[in-house]
Amino acid sequence: MKQQKPWEHISLIVYDFDGVMTDNRVMVDQHGVESVMVNRGDGYGIAQIKKMGILQVIISTETNEVVKRRAEKLQIDIIHGVEDKRSILQNYCIEQKIALENVLFLGNDLNDYDAMMITGFRGAPADAEEEILAIADWISKSNGGYGVIRELYRKLSSISQIARR
Amino acid sequence: MKQQKPWEHISLIVYDFDGVMTDNRVMVDQHGVESVMVNRGDGYGIAQIKKMGILQVIISTETNEVVKRRAEKLQIDIIHGVEDKRSILQNYCIEQKIALENVLFLGNDLNDYDAMMITGFRGAPADAEEEILAIADWISKSNGGYGVIRELYRKLSSISQIARR
Amino acid sequence: MKQQKPWEHISLIVYDFDGVMTDNRVMVDQHGVESVMVNRGDGYGIAQIKKMGILQVIISTETNEVVKRRAEKLQIDIIHGVEDKRSILQNYCIEQKIALENVLFLGNDLNDYDAMMITGFRGAPADAEEEILAIADWISKSNGGYGVIRELYRKLSSISQIARR
Amino acid sequence: MKQQKPWEHISLIVYDFDGVMTDNRVMVDQHGVESVMVNRGDGYGIAQIKKMGILQVIISTETNEVVKRRAEKLQIDIIHGVEDKRSILQNYCIEQKIALENVLFLGNDLNDYDAMMITGFRGAPADAEEEILAIADWISKSNGGYGVIRELYRKLSSISQIARR
Repeated sequence: MKQQKPWEHISLIVYDFDGVMTDNRVMVDQHGVESVMVNRGDGYGIAQIKKMGILQVIISTETNEVVKRRAEKLQIDIIHGVEDKRSILQNYCIEQKIALENVLFLGNDLNDYDAMMITGFRGAPADAEEEILAIADWISKSNGGYGVIRELYRKLSSISQIARR
Repeated sequence: MKQQKPWEHISLIVYDFDGVMTDNRVMVDQHGVESVMVNRGDGYGIAQIKKMGILQVIISTETNEVVKRRAEKLQIDIIHGVEDKRSILQNYCIEQKIALENVLFLGNDLNDYDAMMITGFRGAPADAEEEILAIADWISKSNGGYGVIRELYRKLSSISQIARR
Repeated sequence: MKQQKPWEHISLIVYDFDGVMTDNRVMVDQHGVESVMVNRGDGYGIAQIKKMGILQVIISTETNEVVKRRAEKLQIDIIHGVEDKRSILQNYCIEQKIALENVLFLGNDLNDYDAMMITGFRGAPADAEEEILAIADWISKSNGGYGVIRELYRKLSSISQIARR
Repeated sequence: MKQQKPWEHISLIVYDFDGVMTDNRVMVDQHGVESVMVNRGDGYGIAQIKKMGILQVIISTETNEVVKRRAEKLQIDIIHGVEDKRSILQNYCIEQKIALENVLFLGNDLNDYDAMMITGFRGAPADAEEEILAIADWISKSNGGYGVIRELYRKLSSISQIARR
């Protein structure tokens, strides 16, 4: 992990969904209906981070009904498009006038790599792939789906308390 | 953990649902339908605690269909309302003429904290948040959803055997 | 664990369902529909034990749709009734002319205790309650739902090979 | 494990489904509908292996709707038939003009054994049955359902980089 950068500069958090908000597993039934296991602790964390004035979005390269339903429940946006995650993120940040250096990206696998390389901050669950762990500024103690964002809230909250002094 | 208080004085047990009766994870499908994993051992524990003459309720700040279904199956009540958990609990205890010092609250995250501070007894699953573990009189060996209440029944039952001597 | 009795005398195996064929957890959805996680390895074990000429049944004190569906798939019977598991088992063995000393009961919690006390052989998953572990002749290495019966088949199969010599 | 054979010769990978792509558990609901937990990392691995020009199929002895749905999503074929897995595989390889010595079979239980004995390469998840582990050339660090194929892709990819030098 790199030297600690000033986390109070984070104005946008981008979440990869599978492997971050879930344990990367997906249930499939006989009719092809998919379901995933998300975490109430993460729901609590996201609600609290929202109160801190930090924007949060889920990034997705395909239209996925499960992701849509979860985003609705969490009341945060999904950014998606036809391109790779890096392009999707770049376009979004231009639109929203957010500097990439103030963005924290939480990812877990190689398809997050290029997008993570352009953001100022990079986070990963404990069980992310090794290439992602290698570039992460912050690695949660939890595995994906077991409270990564609850843990991120704890970190952001302790930093904001220090910053306020 | 504090010095052991006389557990035979407990006349009401209040359960937080997610993270106590479940592992804090929730399944979401493509249609937004939610499901959780509960524990048959907890079902057994609750039935046995009922036979000991101790009242048991689930506390909830929102109307949640899954919680409702589980409470129906367990044949225990849900107490809920528009306020925070502390107010819901206070109102319920006034109505039911139960002294807060005879209440055991089982919780796992910060939204349980204020309610737990006014009850005589406080319990938490092994994987509760650190602020909750810090105020708990009793911490189960099991994580949430893996038999916390089955374990609580074992404890209550051994105490009632000692008390009967 | 007691001294090893002659396992080749087993002619009936009685399975408790929750906690033996499952991890004792049950999924509940918003509509109250229940689901459980069973194990393909157990399915394989049951099919192989059937080929050894040993009768296998699931014991149940209530009519449970999930148990019924699983028994159908495994093509084994459910024995159930209005009484406790001990009475259900006794009646069944009289009907089928099976001596209780040739019965193996696999159970995990206190509601299996009395029935287990009248059978010749007693088995339990590694994570059974302590009272059950205390009376078990055989304890699987697996926890409930993670291949207890696959492991039982391995044991029965090694015994039958020794017996054949 | 045997001495390492030249993995760059693999032209077909055959996946057993339960216990390799899943943790061998299956969810059953009140209506008998089955569901399994698969892994997004495996989905990523399969897509990447496809780009390497290696053919991939799932082998199945029965018509199983869940397997069908998963294969559709992964865009790979299922090979199945009325016979045992060895015959199914032999017929398929004759049809496709693929030499069995260039086939990698990933299996986990005894019903995969005979088919694995005729392929040039044999892989198994960490939690496969001991007879399967005993004949495996490669054993993943992950248990079944927790990224076995994601890990296989990492291995194939490192080999193809070495081969290219």
